[in-house]
Amino acid sequence: MVVGYQTYLELIPELLADKEVLSSQMMKEVERARQCLELAASGKSVALVSGGDPGIYAMAGLVFEMARERGDGVRIEVIPGIAALNACAARLGAPLMHDFAAVSLSDLLTPWPLIEKRLTAAAEADFVIVLYNPKSKRRTEHIVRARELILNHRAPETPVGIVTAATRDNETVTLTTLGEMLTAEIGMQSCVIIGNSATFTWQEFMVTPRGYSGKYALAGEFKPLV
Amino acid sequence: MVVGYQTYLELIPELLADKEVLSSQMMKEVERARQCLELAASGKSVALVSGGDPGIYAMAGLVFEMARERGDGVRIEVIPGIAALNACAARLGAPLMHDFAAVSLSDLLTPWPLIEKRLTAAAEADFVIVLYNPKSKRRTEHIVRARELILNHRAPETPVGIVTAATRDNETVTLTTLGEMLTAEIGMQSCVIIGNSATFTWQEFMVTPRGYSGKYALAGEFKPLV
Repeated sequence: MVVGYQTYLELIPELLADKEVLSSQMMKEVERARQCLELAASGKSVALVSGGDPGIYAMAGLVFEMARERGDGVRIEVIPGIAALNACAARLGAPLMHDFAAVSLSDLLTPWPLIEKRLTAAAEADFVIVLYNPKSKRRTEHIVRARELILNHRAPETPVGIVTAATRDNETVTLTTLGEMLTAEIGMQSCVIIGNSATFTWQEFMVTPRGYSGKYALAGEFKPLV
Repeated sequence: MVVGYQTYLELIPELLADKEVLSSQMMKEVERARQCLELAASGKSVALVSGGDPGIYAMAGLVFEMARERGDGVRIEVIPGIAALNACAARLGAPLMHDFAAVSLSDLLTPWPLIEKRLTAAAEADFVIVLYNPKSKRRTEHIVRARELILNHRAPETPVGIVTAATRDNETVTLTTLGEMLTAEIGMQSCVIIGNSATFTWQEFMVTPRGYSGKYALAGEFKPLV
């Protein structure tokens, strides 16, 4: 059977046609994971459907944590998907061609000082930075502070891409800079990608070059990355 | 028309059935990208097929870099895919539930001191670390040095997952530790994921908990991540 948040299940009607379906509108993530494990323990084959990639900041971990706690020997398999970082990078061009760090700005489950430490480390070591959960109604100052920390190590002209509701009907894509980014609209469905020191913009795209060796590619002296 | 490395095109015969196909066995990445841009500039609609996600350490950036250089106004769109990090994380369980950094150990296009700086920064700030290009025939010592740098900030018991040839017929999955990892087989097709200080193993899986708040999920006090 198939279990999932109703909004996601509505996107895949053809896959649900002959299946037993349990859709939830309000049920919390923990309850949903628990219900899946209970159903699986009772002998059913259960697919828990998530948005994006269940393995990146998503439901897979919760299921494993609860399965370990319950200890009823259910067999679990994770099917990867297109995470926000994959989808947003594609919409922006090619910002993730070089080393990058993903940081969630939500401090609900992580102490804020640790988040600051990670932002500073990533900025200092010239990682492209992908910000998950940049802003919510209650958390409006985290993105302000994050930008400030990153600006300590990166130029205000650094390209920044903001993708909201990637691949959905209400998708928006904004290309801005570290200096200007706070004037752009950032919300709960946004993912923010901050370039490294070599990232450039071209047309409506944001591109991080694959190397630090200059015009390797076009001079015919290119060596493959692997 | 469809352009791509022959090995990848052989995986999708049903998508090529009625298409003009240009497969290359030995052609280098730069030549392939240039050929695509030339074909597109001549008026053709061209799909350049890559393995994984073209937007993560892959072909998309090269295409943009060359298009900018050529300046012939070709329209480019990137379609995201399942990158090695998505696929390998899924095979290992749920190691990427929290902040992570991706670092390529290839120094062909990146100065090695910068790679060392990133490894140290990521280790110090307790990022889960995903190592791309951990080893090749010529580069056998980089993974040794990377482990050494990470061990300065993380316990030898830290779980490490090694996935080779993810989703292919010759896929292998190994669960080990930072202390023991060099005894495992690591090759050109491997991706190595090193847990953060909270990552645990359970059964044959590697799981990073979603928060640093202890038993939030199971005590019913859970707050959603977003």
